[in-house]
Amino acid sequence: MIKQKAIVLFSGGRDSSFVALLLDSLGYDVTLVTANAGISPNSWKTAAKPAKILGFPHELVKVEKYIYEEAAKIAEKDGFPLNAIKHIHLKVIEAIAHKYHKTHTTIADGTRRDDRTPRLTYPEMQSLEDRYKISYVAPLLGFGHKAVNHLSDVMFEYDKIWTGKKPTAEYEIELRLVLEKRKKGIVKKIFPKNHFHSVVTKVKKR
Amino acid sequence: MIKQKAIVLFSGGRDSSFVALLLDSLGYDVTLVTANAGISPNSWKTAAKPAKILGFPHELVKVEKYIYEEAAKIAEKDGFPLNAIKHIHLKVIEAIAHKYHKTHTTIADGTRRDDRTPRLTYPEMQSLEDRYKISYVAPLLGFGHKAVNHLSDVMFEYDKIWTGKKPTAEYEIELRLVLEKRKKGIVKKIFPKNHFHSVVTKVKKR
Repeated sequence: MIKQKAIVLFSGGRDSSFVALLLDSLGYDVTLVTANAGISPNSWKTAAKPAKILGFPHELVKVEKYIYEEAAKIAEKDGFPLNAIKHIHLKVIEAIAHKYHKTHTTIADGTRRDDRTPRLTYPEMQSLEDRYKISYVAPLLGFGHKAVNHLSDVMFEYDKIWTGKKPTAEYEIELRLVLEKRKKGIVKKIFPKNHFHSVVTKVKKR
Repeated sequence: MIKQKAIVLFSGGRDSSFVALLLDSLGYDVTLVTANAGISPNSWKTAAKPAKILGFPHELVKVEKYIYEEAAKIAEKDGFPLNAIKHIHLKVIEAIAHKYHKTHTTIADGTRRDDRTPRLTYPEMQSLEDRYKISYVAPLLGFGHKAVNHLSDVMFEYDKIWTGKKPTAEYEIELRLVLEKRKKGIVKKIFPKNHFHSVVTKVKKR
């Protein structure tokens, strides 16, 4: 049996770190990738340190800026960012599939079952797998927030970065910049407050 | 951190075996349970040998026969067994929650993303978790059939039991008996042919 090579979409946070360790323990050869559109060209580097802590190779996937323009229009129309972030997520997964489908069998992300994470629909998953002949896996889809939080607490120490305070490797950072450029003051209106991203600082248990 | 105790609904097949090993590797204290309504009182024992091979304690959960009567009516009306099996599945998960929620934090099953496995809806998962204060996890929900089959092939050797040929610990066995008693010949009409259940015979890799 040839070892399967998996790309894990990685923000440096607990969820994508958990997915990386899980796939590694299942025997996959893991490479982490972080998306960036060049709008905040250094923010993806926030994920570099957690990647090093986990011990997997880490690569940048460049995505097109117009995707964030499209997403900004969606967020403006909705008055909240969820569907905009979902739009970016699907486009990023497609960019990853396009780049890696000839060398890797599997693309994974940290989508959870019941948080407001961006999520591919079932037809989107199927379409992706059929077009690129890859497996899309989202191991946390089968876990609720209580279970994921428990597992994360067992596995990781992490910093909480309050959203908007410092750049992180999340899509949100670049989306905020595009939105604010289009319409001053909008970010404060449509993004939820008191929301944090985690950045893994230590693996306690593998 | 107290070790969390998980009940894994277990048929002896690859999927529930995979879930048991996965939760074990994540640090859960795993107990396997197999459901039986006393209609085919020994069929659940098919799961006993795989349970021993995996090395986890294995218990019987008795469920009420009327659940299978209700399911039989659903299958008769539908002309196919999927919704009937889903009905049994939800009732079995509830029986497990009722029996174990005071001693265990987590109930898990081998539901996959894109096979015709019986599946709890998202509101059913939420309701179960809220009523019993437990976590419901279905780790294979995030994996497509290609990925699951790959992982199973790496982990297990297994026998294929063609459905209807020999009793296995699946709900289907008792549902078939109830249906056939209600209406002779119906089982042959409504169950798919060339369908097999796996029974794990060896763990190749943990």
